[in-house]
Amino acid sequence: MSFSNDDSKRMRRALRLAEKGKGYVAPNPLVGCVICSKDGRVIGEGFHERYGKAHAEINALEKVRDPSDLLDATVYVTLEPCSHHGKTPPCAETLGKYPLKRVVVAMKDPNPQVNGNGMAHLKSKGIRVETGLLEDEARRLNEVFIFNTRFGKPYVILKVAQTLDGYVAAPDGGSKWISGDKARKMVHKWRSEYDAVMVGRNTALLDNPKLTVRHVSGRQPKRIVIDGPGTLPDDLHLFSDIHEDKTIRVTYNRSLADNQPDPALSMLQPDYFRGANIAVSEINGHCNLEQAINKIGDMGINSILVEAGSSLASALVRENLVDKLQLFIAPKMLGGGTRSFLGLGIERMSEVIGFREGRWEKFGDDMLYTGYF
Amino acid sequence: MSFSNDDSKRMRRALRLAEKGKGYVAPNPLVGCVICSKDGRVIGEGFHERYGKAHAEINALEKVRDPSDLLDATVYVTLEPCSHHGKTPPCAETLGKYPLKRVVVAMKDPNPQVNGNGMAHLKSKGIRVETGLLEDEARRLNEVFIFNTRFGKPYVILKVAQTLDGYVAAPDGGSKWISGDKARKMVHKWRSEYDAVMVGRNTALLDNPKLTVRHVSGRQPKRIVIDGPGTLPDDLHLFSDIHEDKTIRVTYNRSLADNQPDPALSMLQPDYFRGANIAVSEINGHCNLEQAINKIGDMGINSILVEAGSSLASALVRENLVDKLQLFIAPKMLGGGTRSFLGLGIERMSEVIGFREGRWEKFGDDMLYTGYF
Repeated sequence: MSFSNDDSKRMRRALRLAEKGKGYVAPNPLVGCVICSKDGRVIGEGFHERYGKAHAEINALEKVRDPSDLLDATVYVTLEPCSHHGKTPPCAETLGKYPLKRVVVAMKDPNPQVNGNGMAHLKSKGIRVETGLLEDEARRLNEVFIFNTRFGKPYVILKVAQTLDGYVAAPDGGSKWISGDKARKMVHKWRSEYDAVMVGRNTALLDNPKLTVRHVSGRQPKRIVIDGPGTLPDDLHLFSDIHEDKTIRVTYNRSLADNQPDPALSMLQPDYFRGANIAVSEINGHCNLEQAINKIGDMGINSILVEAGSSLASALVRENLVDKLQLFIAPKMLGGGTRSFLGLGIERMSEVIGFREGRWEKFGDDMLYTGYF
Repeated sequence: MSFSNDDSKRMRRALRLAEKGKGYVAPNPLVGCVICSKDGRVIGEGFHERYGKAHAEINALEKVRDPSDLLDATVYVTLEPCSHHGKTPPCAETLGKYPLKRVVVAMKDPNPQVNGNGMAHLKSKGIRVETGLLEDEARRLNEVFIFNTRFGKPYVILKVAQTLDGYVAAPDGGSKWISGDKARKMVHKWRSEYDAVMVGRNTALLDNPKLTVRHVSGRQPKRIVIDGPGTLPDDLHLFSDIHEDKTIRVTYNRSLADNQPDPALSMLQPDYFRGANIAVSEINGHCNLEQAINKIGDMGINSILVEAGSSLASALVRENLVDKLQLFIAPKMLGGGTRSFLGLGIERMSEVIGFREGRWEKFGDDMLYTGYF
């Protein structure tokens, strides 16, 4: 399939529109849509704005002022239009009612209920369907959705901010501030985009973090704290501020697991949530982290941003529970203190952990490494 | 002073020419020169090719085929033309004999024997002198020369190759290969450009390195090994290969300091060199590193590329003996092993070591951080 520069431009715009749904549409995918008349004017734009609300294609169609413009129009959409009846009617059917010339799709919907059916329906209506334009970008945009669809569990992103020489705290325990303003803002943006933020017991006790979105605007995430014995004090921000009903405590102390919300209810109404204690089994004095992540997934949480310290971060990596690493490196040296990673069980270079699709990106003075395990 | 795009283009060319002298002109500066006729043709180019040989300006003048082209010509030179009689006659005097219109200089010569005198001489001959074009680039090019001139001691560059999480070797001691091909080639290029390469006793024993230039073409560096007790075995590559006369052993064992070359002779004939043992005082069972660097400087060595392991690297940083850090970060994780830096004497974040003029640069999959202490 070969696409024109104009095609790429329109799809790029659709991808940017899709991004605006970050933080609001999970467990649905992010989708953007741009409609162009046959003479190349943009006549409609839209994106999926919120879970349970209209899909991108419908929002874009609603913007079209003169329906006659749809004759031989081209629709650019970042994900295959859906073919199944969910909370809204299938977009493929709706699009199929119009006299469109082309529908250009960045990627097929991996959802087994769709997976080509949407495109097949459009073709059956005589509409030309072209796929694969900016597919890599579309896959990256929806990496959480793709992962959830494929593996049926939450996507785990580990964020670490360290010095050049791999320390996350000075010998006296201080870690304010290793990374700069731009890195910190980015982390707050991520908090607003992923479903939940996770920390360990030490971080909760030593830093008493809020884990809220402050330096950018956006919705507040749910908060998860791994608290094996379940003895963290109630007056920590996580348990006592105005977002206390967004905090989940993971414990191996089964007497605390008293108020787990109904998973079915959570799935149906993602706005509904109550602070909860969830119980998992104990392994060598620690919480069973794999079980924890699965249980968190059962509560309707599809992505977890881990902002843990060295022990929890290393444990998650060692147990193969991290899907994506986001490592900020600040141009500073400590030569001692808490190491970013320790105890991964590696003895020799041949066992070194590498990454897929790694990329480096500057954030002010700092460098961000992104890699997939 | 404002310069045209053509001016910048010519000076950039002169800077590229100057670079070709790397490894061959120390303790002199790297200098490149481009001469343009009044109608903008390049009529001569040259650079300082080797210590004791002609300077850049003279090499460029010799390329000019038709001397009448020099009427109202412009000379671009990366460093102020010299005004003192050294191994060659002063370039400012030579240039002053021609009917030039302009001499454009990237930076003043910091050498107190020149330091404006060259430019003053040219002005006295009615030639317009303009300075400061691409001065930052010129200063970076000659950072070793500027440092040597200012402080009278060798410039110390510390190169480290580590994983993302700050390890330079796996728990079993293996470190082959942390960084990739491009990084390794760059290190060999540096070996060919700096006067000497330094390692510590542990690296010499464990890795038995050659420290020669292999993956690129260029001249071989001198080699320095810090060997406190002076008991490293003679059959190491450093002491037994065809470059053995390029190896200096630094020891606190004074009985070994038997064949130090005559410093005066070294300065006059840099090609002359013999393997040597130099003795320094002992501090807590280690060599006095500051003394070592000063003594190495006395032997006519103006730049030292340190490729040491964790202990020597950390000791040099702790004692403020490193001028420039070159840190390769490979996108890999070990979670254990030898740390790149340990024991810098830092207790809290307020004491963290920062860098001046830091920059990040990709080398294949790896990232290179360059910073000045």
